[in-house]
Amino acid sequence: MINVGIVGYGNLGRGVEKALKFAPDMNCVGVFTRRNPNDLQTLYNLPVFSVSELPSFKGKIDVLILCGGSATDLPAQTAGYLKDFNTIDSFDTHAKIPEYFEKLDKIGKENGNLSAISVGWDPGLFSICRALFTAVLPNGFDNTFWGKGVSQGHSDCIRRIEGVANAIQYTIPKDEALTKARSGEKVELTVRDKHLRECFVAVKEGADKGLIEKTIKETPNYFADYDTIVHFVSEEQVKEMQKSLAHGGFVIRTGETQGNSHVMEFSLKLGSNPEFTSSVIVAYARAVVKLNKEGKTGAVTVLDIPISYLLNEKYQDILHNYV
Amino acid sequence: MINVGIVGYGNLGRGVEKALKFAPDMNCVGVFTRRNPNDLQTLYNLPVFSVSELPSFKGKIDVLILCGGSATDLPAQTAGYLKDFNTIDSFDTHAKIPEYFEKLDKIGKENGNLSAISVGWDPGLFSICRALFTAVLPNGFDNTFWGKGVSQGHSDCIRRIEGVANAIQYTIPKDEALTKARSGEKVELTVRDKHLRECFVAVKEGADKGLIEKTIKETPNYFADYDTIVHFVSEEQVKEMQKSLAHGGFVIRTGETQGNSHVMEFSLKLGSNPEFTSSVIVAYARAVVKLNKEGKTGAVTVLDIPISYLLNEKYQDILHNYV
Repeated sequence: MINVGIVGYGNLGRGVEKALKFAPDMNCVGVFTRRNPNDLQTLYNLPVFSVSELPSFKGKIDVLILCGGSATDLPAQTAGYLKDFNTIDSFDTHAKIPEYFEKLDKIGKENGNLSAISVGWDPGLFSICRALFTAVLPNGFDNTFWGKGVSQGHSDCIRRIEGVANAIQYTIPKDEALTKARSGEKVELTVRDKHLRECFVAVKEGADKGLIEKTIKETPNYFADYDTIVHFVSEEQVKEMQKSLAHGGFVIRTGETQGNSHVMEFSLKLGSNPEFTSSVIVAYARAVVKLNKEGKTGAVTVLDIPISYLLNEKYQDILHNYV
Repeated sequence: MINVGIVGYGNLGRGVEKALKFAPDMNCVGVFTRRNPNDLQTLYNLPVFSVSELPSFKGKIDVLILCGGSATDLPAQTAGYLKDFNTIDSFDTHAKIPEYFEKLDKIGKENGNLSAISVGWDPGLFSICRALFTAVLPNGFDNTFWGKGVSQGHSDCIRRIEGVANAIQYTIPKDEALTKARSGEKVELTVRDKHLRECFVAVKEGADKGLIEKTIKETPNYFADYDTIVHFVSEEQVKEMQKSLAHGGFVIRTGETQGNSHVMEFSLKLGSNPEFTSSVIVAYARAVVKLNKEGKTGAVTVLDIPISYLLNEKYQDILHNYV
């Protein structure tokens, strides 16, 4: 039995609790929170502890599943936890991954623990696809598409505009770009070609809708380089839309051998982004424990972990059932 | 520089020669054939040797790429080569993979060599998907579809019928079944639901077409369980069709977390089945050499090999470019 601890109980922590229901080889020792443990009740009544109690669990937890955010939680916390535990997280600030990896690789090696970083679907499964597809078809090019789904960053960006009461932004891959990416022909797709940004905005009384729409569409990086559509709706409508956490995406690679063209495609259509991400994390948490037992320490990403380690089955059964 | 040898020069061997053009870190020492080496000229004029000369290349070849067939060549040859070399093959008799693995695992370990078996797209990339998708969404079910593409086995089966001069059989996934598999709903698909078998048959003079069509459609295992369509065409038309080696397929898994449904899909659209298979093999040949250098011996499948080993890039670049 693999003993896990969940650190943080937002959407991702709840998703991990749910995903563990389908992992009969894993036992959750408890949820660790920075809030008052007495104020927190989990979905299936897991024991709840303060993060300050973690040191007393050293040796009793095989892997800590870190469910904090990439902006501040993970960079501040992972290194500390890694001194006492194996860890897994979903760190997703792509540009900072190499630096984050180096830091944790050193600390993990010094302490005999293993840290799997950036596990989820992007980074995560999409990273596997980009690397695998490129290795197989080096003479080619790939495109990653995201959506249809909510971008929290873009939604936040709109909410910061004066006069906006609430807002939600959907990133939508354009069908025409998907068709081109799959065509097997060499096409350069710009950011504008690939994704549409659709915004649903509720405004405060008396706000200047024209100015808000202009401000959104002209925001550099976030919207200016895209085709952006703005709808003005009620606060209730935005709230209703915020209930769905659906997402998805595509990795499509086209490559040529000598005169023959090939298309490789991986796609996800997710009912709940955090629940799916949690499911990926739970499978890789199993691998972290197995790898550390074999002596592996430091940091790893999904690109370093053989797929057979993700399964709770005997090797001969894996050969028979999947190969 | 990784030194490779190619054993066998059919479609797959030619594909490997082509794929190596995109592997600047790999050098082909030569092609080894059971034919008279003087009768064989390769696409890019590789040195050609008799397989009997292989023992003198011990220590000069880092991995032998075995391009023989699964029916007789590989079971008879791989174990012998593995005593002197690391090997990689595309053994695809699914039911015999566990037994083949065990035998090679033992010989590889005894001789300090590594053998990657069953590398290609199915078994191979599709095996990765079935295992990865199941690990991530254990509460679900998946379907593998093949095609549109030629099935050599089914084409051979038709050619053995009396009165048939030549024939080609296409396996075609049914759109309705693909739609169902992607729907996120739990559906049981029978073999008949999933694939259509379309046959193009040229007959000898005076042959009984009605009887041939009936014989095809009633052949157990091959056709009786499927919707089978038979067209009678000229020998020239069959020959023309035989020029295309296009193929493809889909692995689709639907799974539920707690109340949310998710669909994972991997698909391939291949201009040339053997050229794509060869491209997969060349990427994994690189990994075989790296793993053996690290001390790994015995047998492995694609499920045991981390994706980062497939790339000819520094680890920090891999982190930056793909994760």
